[in-house]
Amino acid sequence: MYIPETKLPRVVIIGAGFAGLQVAKNINTKSYQIVLIDKNNYHTFQPLLYQVASTGLEPDSIAYPIRKILQNKKNAFYRLADVSKINIDSSTLSTNIGEIAYDILVIATGATNNFFGNDSLQKNSLPMKTLIDSLNLRSKILGNFELALNEKNPERKEALLNFVIVGAGPTGVELAGALAELRNNALPKDFPDLDLSGVKVTLIEAAPRVLSAMSEIASKKSEDYLKGLGVTVMKNTRVKEYENNIVSIEDGSSILADTLIWAAGVKGQFPAGITPENIVKNRILTDGYCKMKLSSNVYVLGDVAFMQSEEYPNGLPMLASVADQQGRYLGKSLNSLARLKTVKRFIYQDKGHMATVGKNKAVVDTKPLKFQGIFAWFVWMTIHLMLLVGFRNRAVVLVNWAWAYFKSNNSLRLIIRPFHSQKTH
Amino acid sequence: MYIPETKLPRVVIIGAGFAGLQVAKNINTKSYQIVLIDKNNYHTFQPLLYQVASTGLEPDSIAYPIRKILQNKKNAFYRLADVSKINIDSSTLSTNIGEIAYDILVIATGATNNFFGNDSLQKNSLPMKTLIDSLNLRSKILGNFELALNEKNPERKEALLNFVIVGAGPTGVELAGALAELRNNALPKDFPDLDLSGVKVTLIEAAPRVLSAMSEIASKKSEDYLKGLGVTVMKNTRVKEYENNIVSIEDGSSILADTLIWAAGVKGQFPAGITPENIVKNRILTDGYCKMKLSSNVYVLGDVAFMQSEEYPNGLPMLASVADQQGRYLGKSLNSLARLKTVKRFIYQDKGHMATVGKNKAVVDTKPLKFQGIFAWFVWMTIHLMLLVGFRNRAVVLVNWAWAYFKSNNSLRLIIRPFHSQKTH
Repeated sequence: MYIPETKLPRVVIIGAGFAGLQVAKNINTKSYQIVLIDKNNYHTFQPLLYQVASTGLEPDSIAYPIRKILQNKKNAFYRLADVSKINIDSSTLSTNIGEIAYDILVIATGATNNFFGNDSLQKNSLPMKTLIDSLNLRSKILGNFELALNEKNPERKEALLNFVIVGAGPTGVELAGALAELRNNALPKDFPDLDLSGVKVTLIEAAPRVLSAMSEIASKKSEDYLKGLGVTVMKNTRVKEYENNIVSIEDGSSILADTLIWAAGVKGQFPAGITPENIVKNRILTDGYCKMKLSSNVYVLGDVAFMQSEEYPNGLPMLASVADQQGRYLGKSLNSLARLKTVKRFIYQDKGHMATVGKNKAVVDTKPLKFQGIFAWFVWMTIHLMLLVGFRNRAVVLVNWAWAYFKSNNSLRLIIRPFHSQKTH
Repeated sequence: MYIPETKLPRVVIIGAGFAGLQVAKNINTKSYQIVLIDKNNYHTFQPLLYQVASTGLEPDSIAYPIRKILQNKKNAFYRLADVSKINIDSSTLSTNIGEIAYDILVIATGATNNFFGNDSLQKNSLPMKTLIDSLNLRSKILGNFELALNEKNPERKEALLNFVIVGAGPTGVELAGALAELRNNALPKDFPDLDLSGVKVTLIEAAPRVLSAMSEIASKKSEDYLKGLGVTVMKNTRVKEYENNIVSIEDGSSILADTLIWAAGVKGQFPAGITPENIVKNRILTDGYCKMKLSSNVYVLGDVAFMQSEEYPNGLPMLASVADQQGRYLGKSLNSLARLKTVKRFIYQDKGHMATVGKNKAVVDTKPLKFQGIFAWFVWMTIHLMLLVGFRNRAVVLVNWAWAYFKSNNSLRLIIRPFHSQKTH
């Protein structure tokens, strides 16, 4: 692949998620040339994917073109490419558009779904990790209501109207709440001729409580919210298999469902070429400076990085905030190194956790304060609006949220994915 | 398919375009039961498809869920279905979700691309008739710039950067202008490392002028606008063949282009079951009351209807305004018939024509007045905003247009179509 040669060292960043983007934004391009590689031409704001899936937002407002982010940076290049292999010895990458050499490499390739080796779940469940996943899910959900209207077989109809979400972390909780609100608010107006009492949203969690990474009070309150919206919450429950629309639970019971959404686990993903000694639990081992162990010019950030500390012996959590902080840290560290200054270790600042279940219903845990309800919901919305990239996106999301708040009935219920043409016809 | 039985006569409408939608909106559901059938669950505002293709608008803001339009109508039902056959003798429809009986049938199935029997054009050109077409086109256009960056073969690179549009009606003219503006305004910021002088937009028209259905002054002015934006306009030119990225012109010359967009002709489309005597030039023959010839309970509206008058011996033009007026007319006519009142013949009110080429550049023809330029452009925008269904859509489109006006640089350049995963990788 052709990138102009300069005298500056070249930093190649794989992945334009939260971590990769922050490196690119913070790095001084008077000291380095940047090449950012991603297999999509846009950055995805993953925390709001569930709103695309549940018809709350349009896809274009939670994604942002990478080229637009780099517009005001000289000496920064983007390439749409898939990296197949990292050649540590020669400091090059093998990609589908050719080979590229790096002086410094940043691996920020994120995470993918972890099915823990369960083939039936991997094959038959729907993921929600990418924008395309979310659009497919939106079409699948809406398409199922259309199919249910004409279905005479009661078992098939029951399956079409059952939505099972596995995993009650923030993603699972937020999606379950949003689907329940869709059923409660918009669907009765859309489907006056469908008996909506048959529509069931079930949230399955292996742990003894929902949002188990948050406080007890947040878990309790969010479970109350979910139940209030009509979500069936099953804790201490493990899914064994999912075949032919039957969700088999470990205790021997089962649920008939045409849709199972997997939100129960992720694992690091990265190209070939990393030596096995550097891989811990599907993540790449780093030192306290985000540098890959046993290497001098390879850094690893975000979900794919395994960085231990006293407080986090099992590695830092796979969270957007960790990725974001590591990206900023590394950008600034590289700038310091270019000026021959010393660099401090990375320290993760845990600023708290939050999740929203529905209108006026959210939970927020911070170190000094834990709170829930309408104020938590406003905090959640404000922070997410601020984190979105781009003024236009913020404006469009605000229009949508304001509309949803007062009308509970927007107009984003379009089936525009290949699902429609491939499966319903 | 199950629809509740009532004592009211059932009006089945095939197609939720401009015509079908207006019938459904205007009909009195105290007199009739309505069943609206469409193979998509949304109405598409086709006049703005070109803005989705050229990265000006998001898909969700120019489409509107049919169920939401029918929400406040009792006794109105929507079904997502493909109609394969109209059984005139038994007054039923055969569909992929079962049979449905009608008392009154409204055929409003619109038009599809007409390639006039040219197989190579049909196989290799890209259409822009549906929302999915437009999204595919957006991804194709953006994907080609990404590919061109890494292309070493000069012929292949030239082909990737050449965009040929065949047909200089409003669709072709508007798309050509929008692509030229994309090249002139957003791309230089997005692709600092690509030589954009290689990007060519060519508009090919068989007639001696562009916008041949409009006035001479509109044709002249819009051609000036196009040339001002850098579009190559070829009049009196017919495409003979399009194979292996070579556009062969009838005079023996050829153009190398990876993208050929077909905007040169449409033809009526309708299910099987119409007797050949009733088919004229791929459209269905109607009398002056929009009723299919030789039938008592079948109406045909919009692009698919062939209605002659003294002023229009070749049938009314295939325009959104004809479809809209016929839809309103038929809704009200059916209401009159239910009250046993007599019905007047349909008369098309030609309110004028318009097209936009770019920022501050539009042409408007009305009977009393023809005007061009910035005022025409404001008129065009205002009318299109008013015609869009739904307040939220209008608000989002307004945000996008205002943003584009002041910045010429929005954030909708995402490649999110299957094209990306299937072809570039």
